[in-house]
Amino acid sequence: MPILNKDMQVCISLSGRPSNLGTRFHNFLYDELGLNFLYKAFTTDDLEGAIRGMRALDFRGCSVSMPFKEAVIPLVDVMEDSAAAIESVNTIVNDDGRLTASNTDYEAVAQLIAEHGLDPGARVVVRGSGGMAKAVVAAFRGAGFADLTVLARNAEAGPALAAKYGYAWVGDEPEASFDVIVNVTPLGMQGADAAALAFDEAFIERASTVFDVVAFPAETPLIAAARSAGTPVITGAEVVALQAARQFERYTGVALTREQVERAAAFSRAD
Amino acid sequence: MPILNKDMQVCISLSGRPSNLGTRFHNFLYDELGLNFLYKAFTTDDLEGAIRGMRALDFRGCSVSMPFKEAVIPLVDVMEDSAAAIESVNTIVNDDGRLTASNTDYEAVAQLIAEHGLDPGARVVVRGSGGMAKAVVAAFRGAGFADLTVLARNAEAGPALAAKYGYAWVGDEPEASFDVIVNVTPLGMQGADAAALAFDEAFIERASTVFDVVAFPAETPLIAAARSAGTPVITGAEVVALQAARQFERYTGVALTREQVERAAAFSRAD
Repeated sequence: MPILNKDMQVCISLSGRPSNLGTRFHNFLYDELGLNFLYKAFTTDDLEGAIRGMRALDFRGCSVSMPFKEAVIPLVDVMEDSAAAIESVNTIVNDDGRLTASNTDYEAVAQLIAEHGLDPGARVVVRGSGGMAKAVVAAFRGAGFADLTVLARNAEAGPALAAKYGYAWVGDEPEASFDVIVNVTPLGMQGADAAALAFDEAFIERASTVFDVVAFPAETPLIAAARSAGTPVITGAEVVALQAARQFERYTGVALTREQVERAAAFSRAD
Repeated sequence: MPILNKDMQVCISLSGRPSNLGTRFHNFLYDELGLNFLYKAFTTDDLEGAIRGMRALDFRGCSVSMPFKEAVIPLVDVMEDSAAAIESVNTIVNDDGRLTASNTDYEAVAQLIAEHGLDPGARVVVRGSGGMAKAVVAAFRGAGFADLTVLARNAEAGPALAAKYGYAWVGDEPEASFDVIVNVTPLGMQGADAAALAFDEAFIERASTVFDVVAFPAETPLIAAARSAGTPVITGAEVVALQAARQFERYTGVALTREQVERAAAFSRAD
């Protein structure tokens, strides 16, 4: 019986189009771990009012999604490096009225680059120029990668992203000469682009690591092709799970095992 | 397993010192009735920010307790008669951004006066001069009672309350010549005054109805004495249950049976 109590700490999310993923992920783990927390997704047409409400009602945490990741910056008190590096916030923690912002997408990508042992001397191509592409490119820059090409049709966002981190931009697919290929577009995502392969076979054959940030499905055409070719992969499911675990730890102080994250993520998708 | 979902409607309470009563009462019934709602008690040091947050996050309802019942008035859009009559709000409903305030304590007392068939020609004495005494005196005035005496030691609040509704005030216990005696002080309440009898035996013997607004315990010394004397009673437990039911109906649209209210109230106290 979901009987709540007055002492529960409250975490919320703010996004333009709330999904049930965060609400199910966090509450599943609160329940399993016996944490006196609750988590609930919201949208808003008054971001400033929502953050003021967070302070007034002493919510412990707030997960931030599109289209609020940049707009929320002037409303917090402290920007951690992960959020400042890409001018984008996805996590706010409230310590007695002091709001600290971070970006666990950036942190998750940085951690996966390190864990998978990618070589900073590798030639990298990142396809995409949106908010998540920014997190990915910044994480490669933060890890010391010198040779990275941003591949993006968008002739404004593409060059701007590349220039911001001192990398090259191309508008059309270059030659397949990259060690690490990274997809940060919706190509291969559930829906209209589900069948699309984000990089040609030639890129996959040449690559020593294939990284697809698309999380749904976990097995995109790109990941499937890489696995067939025997190429090591980093999946969007890993990014999602890792960023959620970091968010969870910031809110609750509890570090999750990979197994806990995977079970909660599976539960959150089984809606 | 208390797994929440993004579509739950949220009701909150705001008070200086939150208890678990409302949180348990409302969530118990949400669960039993299968309503996709959640209810959570909060306190705040920024009432305006909390109400702005209620709007920004589209909370459905807000129960208001001391010390916010008057301060919240300028923050709502519409004052219903029950709140306007006593300049005190205990319930706010949010209809697509329009906040309507009411006072279900006033409504509950008015309904009990009617249901118990009290005669508007009766001589009434009300002991007390606080916020709840205001709701009680105003409800008697609204029901057309002409002869009412406010009995209150407080030589400012007592006469002010009596004058506001065109009634008499006395500072010391008058002669026992009343048909309806009403206690709205903490006398007889759990704690320091638990053994205190709010009116002398002579008052109880003379009265045709004894009304004690103290709800904890349900059986105060005054109620116990009245029952021994065979005098009809109205209890604080009835007031609490009725006001909670009216609040619940405003938030959810669901009218509760007395049996549902009693079970939820018992559950809420069994913490």
